[in-house]
Amino acid sequence: MKVLFIGTGLIGGSFSLAMRKHGLLTAAGGYSRNPKNLDKSIALGIIDQKFDTMEAGIAWADWIILSIPVDAIVKLLPGILDQLKPGQGVIDFGSTKGTICDAVATHPNRSQFLAAHPIAGTEYSGPDAAFDTLFDGKLMILCNENETDAALTSSFRMASEKIGMQLESMEAHAHDRHLAYISHLSHITSFALSNAVLEKEKDGDIILELAGSGFASTVRLAKSSPEMWAPIFMENKDKVLEALDDFLDQAQAFRTMLKENRSDEVLKFLEQGRLIKKVID
Amino acid sequence: MKVLFIGTGLIGGSFSLAMRKHGLLTAAGGYSRNPKNLDKSIALGIIDQKFDTMEAGIAWADWIILSIPVDAIVKLLPGILDQLKPGQGVIDFGSTKGTICDAVATHPNRSQFLAAHPIAGTEYSGPDAAFDTLFDGKLMILCNENETDAALTSSFRMASEKIGMQLESMEAHAHDRHLAYISHLSHITSFALSNAVLEKEKDGDIILELAGSGFASTVRLAKSSPEMWAPIFMENKDKVLEALDDFLDQAQAFRTMLKENRSDEVLKFLEQGRLIKKVID
Repeated sequence: MKVLFIGTGLIGGSFSLAMRKHGLLTAAGGYSRNPKNLDKSIALGIIDQKFDTMEAGIAWADWIILSIPVDAIVKLLPGILDQLKPGQGVIDFGSTKGTICDAVATHPNRSQFLAAHPIAGTEYSGPDAAFDTLFDGKLMILCNENETDAALTSSFRMASEKIGMQLESMEAHAHDRHLAYISHLSHITSFALSNAVLEKEKDGDIILELAGSGFASTVRLAKSSPEMWAPIFMENKDKVLEALDDFLDQAQAFRTMLKENRSDEVLKFLEQGRLIKKVID
Repeated sequence: MKVLFIGTGLIGGSFSLAMRKHGLLTAAGGYSRNPKNLDKSIALGIIDQKFDTMEAGIAWADWIILSIPVDAIVKLLPGILDQLKPGQGVIDFGSTKGTICDAVATHPNRSQFLAAHPIAGTEYSGPDAAFDTLFDGKLMILCNENETDAALTSSFRMASEKIGMQLESMEAHAHDRHLAYISHLSHITSFALSNAVLEKEKDGDIILELAGSGFASTVRLAKSSPEMWAPIFMENKDKVLEALDDFLDQAQAFRTMLKENRSDEVLKFLEQGRLIKKVID
């Protein structure tokens, strides 16, 4: 299997390393608008060769894996599908799936595209952040699988399982709604918390000293890549706004209880929130 | 040194275990309104003996360490100071310090009280959660030290250093303002996030599957004890409201940018938030 990675950062890079480790790669190629990242990716063993044009890379590959910001995926994907010959497949790893699936819904080569979202990551980014065990035991969500050629789906499922992932199937917009609540919202609260604290506590030493108080964990996601996350929020705007409004309603309700000294309600609010323990422990 | 622990949960229990490990305890006693916790604490080696009345425990001890909800500290502390004989000292481990210090500011035995806040913890609670290395390398903040007898302060400093802690000195209300931003606010956003998600995602399986997406880290603090945290928010109400309002302003600003498709501003918001990386990495 020859795979062209468009995007060799944390996610794409780790997937390449994991495929290689499990003997699933004959060769990995890379294409990027940023050639510096490709040289680094070759040095790190993520890819074996780089292509000067995307077209050359596509012509060479069995699979093309897109692991770039979601707005870039929406833009590139139709043109890539145009160029595919029978037997080739393109898989995207974007964190939103609705606008991407919609963009190619009526494309004549739609069946050569598989929409995937590996639920894994760290707060770091770039080829340097990639490592071959990132996906161990993690979830790979496939969206709108019935629109994809069965051979592509089953070989990608097999590869994902081989690198230790569990598979899950979801409709693209349902995926985006769940992710808005469970992932995108967490990132927004982390970034907003970080901004509020940085504005108040100009003296970073105090933040650092007190960070053991739980702050570091709550704000960890604010270290994520803005270039990756701004497009996620924009592409998933409606569902993110719905989730954010639900969150703001909760925070405002808490504010009112506190301001009005309703300590029983404050306690109940915390007890309800603590039920998350039963779910994720 | 004979120490009476009023509260032998995560914090008090861990401090007793750490003192014992470093040879700082002759004996540890416990008093609680909940005798069940005391029997468990004896079984876990946190204390050697329990007292049926607080008075008996106080008469026996060199130090009394209060590690109970902050509203209970405010209530109990003046009565405890009333009973102290020369040479005895009482130290509280509450997460807010302003109302506690204010409550005893003019007490004739004020100098026998030391206001302390160990910046350590996990999301678990109770004697079972206690362990003897919880405080290794962590910060112990002492508030309004100049109002405390120098002998008590220096022996408590020595004990804290011996168990591996760094010491920091702060004015009580300044402490509460910093903690409102860096700790209390983090807990509120975690609880609010948990409530918003639990209300939407009634199917816990989906939450569990997608929790790898960063959610688990952001919501970790929502597993904290409501009985400990409700009083913290109430006792530190004014400063918590100030911090919460700053946070809500940030979240609302983000909401407006997103709703109005101002993608450059969204990116800038994330880039600013990401500066936290420089502080805590």
